[in-house]
Amino acid sequence: MKEKLSKVITKVKEKTPLVQAITNYVTINDCANILLAYGASPAMVECDLESQAFAIISSALYINVGTLTKEQAEAMVLAATGAKQSGIPVVLDPVGCAAIPRKIEVINRIAKEGRIDIIKGNAGEIKFLAGVAAKARGVDSVDDGEGLEEACISLAKQYGCVVAVTGAIDIITDGVRVVKILNGTEMLTFVTGAGCMVGALCAGAAGAEEDMLVAAAGAVLAMNLAGEKACQGAKGPGTFKVNLMDEIYALTEGQFIEEGRIEWR
Amino acid sequence: MKEKLSKVITKVKEKTPLVQAITNYVTINDCANILLAYGASPAMVECDLESQAFAIISSALYINVGTLTKEQAEAMVLAATGAKQSGIPVVLDPVGCAAIPRKIEVINRIAKEGRIDIIKGNAGEIKFLAGVAAKARGVDSVDDGEGLEEACISLAKQYGCVVAVTGAIDIITDGVRVVKILNGTEMLTFVTGAGCMVGALCAGAAGAEEDMLVAAAGAVLAMNLAGEKACQGAKGPGTFKVNLMDEIYALTEGQFIEEGRIEWR
Amino acid sequence: MKEKLSKVITKVKEKTPLVQAITNYVTINDCANILLAYGASPAMVECDLESQAFAIISSALYINVGTLTKEQAEAMVLAATGAKQSGIPVVLDPVGCAAIPRKIEVINRIAKEGRIDIIKGNAGEIKFLAGVAAKARGVDSVDDGEGLEEACISLAKQYGCVVAVTGAIDIITDGVRVVKILNGTEMLTFVTGAGCMVGALCAGAAGAEEDMLVAAAGAVLAMNLAGEKACQGAKGPGTFKVNLMDEIYALTEGQFIEEGRIEWR
Repeated sequence: MKEKLSKVITKVKEKTPLVQAITNYVTINDCANILLAYGASPAMVECDLESQAFAIISSALYINVGTLTKEQAEAMVLAATGAKQSGIPVVLDPVGCAAIPRKIEVINRIAKEGRIDIIKGNAGEIKFLAGVAAKARGVDSVDDGEGLEEACISLAKQYGCVVAVTGAIDIITDGVRVVKILNGTEMLTFVTGAGCMVGALCAGAAGAEEDMLVAAAGAVLAMNLAGEKACQGAKGPGTFKVNLMDEIYALTEGQFIEEGRIEWR
Repeated sequence: MKEKLSKVITKVKEKTPLVQAITNYVTINDCANILLAYGASPAMVECDLESQAFAIISSALYINVGTLTKEQAEAMVLAATGAKQSGIPVVLDPVGCAAIPRKIEVINRIAKEGRIDIIKGNAGEIKFLAGVAAKARGVDSVDDGEGLEEACISLAKQYGCVVAVTGAIDIITDGVRVVKILNGTEMLTFVTGAGCMVGALCAGAAGAEEDMLVAAAGAVLAMNLAGEKACQGAKGPGTFKVNLMDEIYALTEGQFIEEGRIEWR
Repeated sequence: MKEKLSKVITKVKEKTPLVQAITNYVTINDCANILLAYGASPAMVECDLESQAFAIISSALYINVGTLTKEQAEAMVLAATGAKQSGIPVVLDPVGCAAIPRKIEVINRIAKEGRIDIIKGNAGEIKFLAGVAAKARGVDSVDDGEGLEEACISLAKQYGCVVAVTGAIDIITDGVRVVKILNGTEMLTFVTGAGCMVGALCAGAAGAEEDMLVAAAGAVLAMNLAGEKACQGAKGPGTFKVNLMDEIYALTEGQFIEEGRIEWR
């Protein structure tokens, strides 16, 4: 499995997948920059007059419901419809869905009229979507993770997709296979949009790797490995975030093999 | 007073107030990151379909009228209404109000239908709101500061709130008490959104400190102390801004006591 | 010519032109910060209720159609109309116009109801606007540059404006004079919005320099010189982008004379 995950970065650099993103305005710049550093080609095409046609020429679609203008909500549904037409993978980041009911309406439309291949969220969001009681506060999860693996598997089966939950331990599952990633650093919680950036990477990976479980796990591991290295020389969240972009750019297959700490079944 | 201001950062870190922000798209990422570095929990919930309900579960609300889409304008009024219902403090950043009449209409609605606890602006904005002749140019103040203290006191009485004006010397007043902060660095004028970030910090502080004068002055002093330290090793506005995030994250109560240069009455 | 280009940065710092920008949300922060570092005064006034009146008090207008909300599209046309009324230069960045037909509709309205003084794009965009077959992919150009100079000259004549195309070699022309810039670094392609930032600098320059060819070429050369220096000590796109802001801020006339590699006729 570790070898498979290590190969994702090379596949991305070789294919430079065109990743359409409709994402929140808080971290839209970070998502674009991390996709470039990863080797993908980001395009933030998010007007409802443009999004469907553009999805048809893209390699993957990233949808993040963080700051959801009315125009964006329509654009997301249309883009997901385009993705369904052309058969490209869709990664959904259900930011804040446990706290804000409107997000769920939009997510349901995306699932119904379009498609969802990977859901990437925090514990609170994933449990909420799975219909399990969870602790969330605003857009942050304060859940303790009890029963999280079961919730992921249940959600993956429910949507017929891969579910990736990030936290101290990351869990990625397609409902049958389960990958756990033990790498990471707490500094990622002091940078806004660390989760969004992982979601964007998942879309980049999904645009170059056919196995969605491998794509999602490869993207999550990439972020964690880069995060660990970014701590070196960082004096706080400012320098850490700058280093993070450098380290995503510098990732090698060897790093995945030597430094990756994963479990799978 | 200096001791009171020093304690604000600890209160924020202990409470991690949930700060809802409806702010301009230029510096939305910086506002989120600086709130995280400060110890608060930012949530940029800014669609008019979501903003009122979210204000009710938040600890404080930050409203910045910098790039004011029509959707945001409605969202701001609704969020301020929610803040009034639930009794949480509202910080207003009246960016560009002296140059763009529409901002005033929105500010008046926020004051009337919602509440305003702290107004944080530059000299041009504060004087304009106070009905005093001022010099502004675009979104920047080019005012010389004459009569500024009187304008702040007058505005604070008019709105029944705390007024914080940033500049070479910062003035914070509730109409009776006046705090002046002598710290700071000119480098803050070479980073877009330094003012917005101070406003966001005011909201973070107001979510954890009951005395709004102390909250606002504590936030402004935090920015100035961090700014002074961020100059060390900075080669220009790029490295300065990165350092600034690190230094907000690293602030200690001792720094406020030892390095703070304030006057009050 | 090199001396003329070198003087643009001094003119900008002396005049601090007020640059109104209506630009995409991906790189809006970078555009504001680079304008500040360059010595201009940016104001992202982009609501259709505000944009025309603000253009009338501005020194230059920057329009970038990257993420084009419906509100922004109207705001752009109105701002360009205001720019025509008050006689200030307009810089257009036709991001993605080769891939997304709607951009062309908006550009046509800007040209018809307002004015365009400089078009700054990549090879794919410029060729497309000139009606020449080009290779584009999403928002990125993958064109090989054959026949590019002719396309630039043709487009400049067609719109009666200056055309600046960025790439390995940059070409700037008013249809008669042609300036080629040989400086630059590939690292600029690993940072999102490098093109947008050049466009913003063009607007800053156009707000202080009357000769639009000199303004555009001076801005493009500024970016390339700063980019070359920003590579020093950069470990990847993260540190490179931070350095870039520092180096724009630190530019000197001497750098243009000593390090500038240009051809002109």
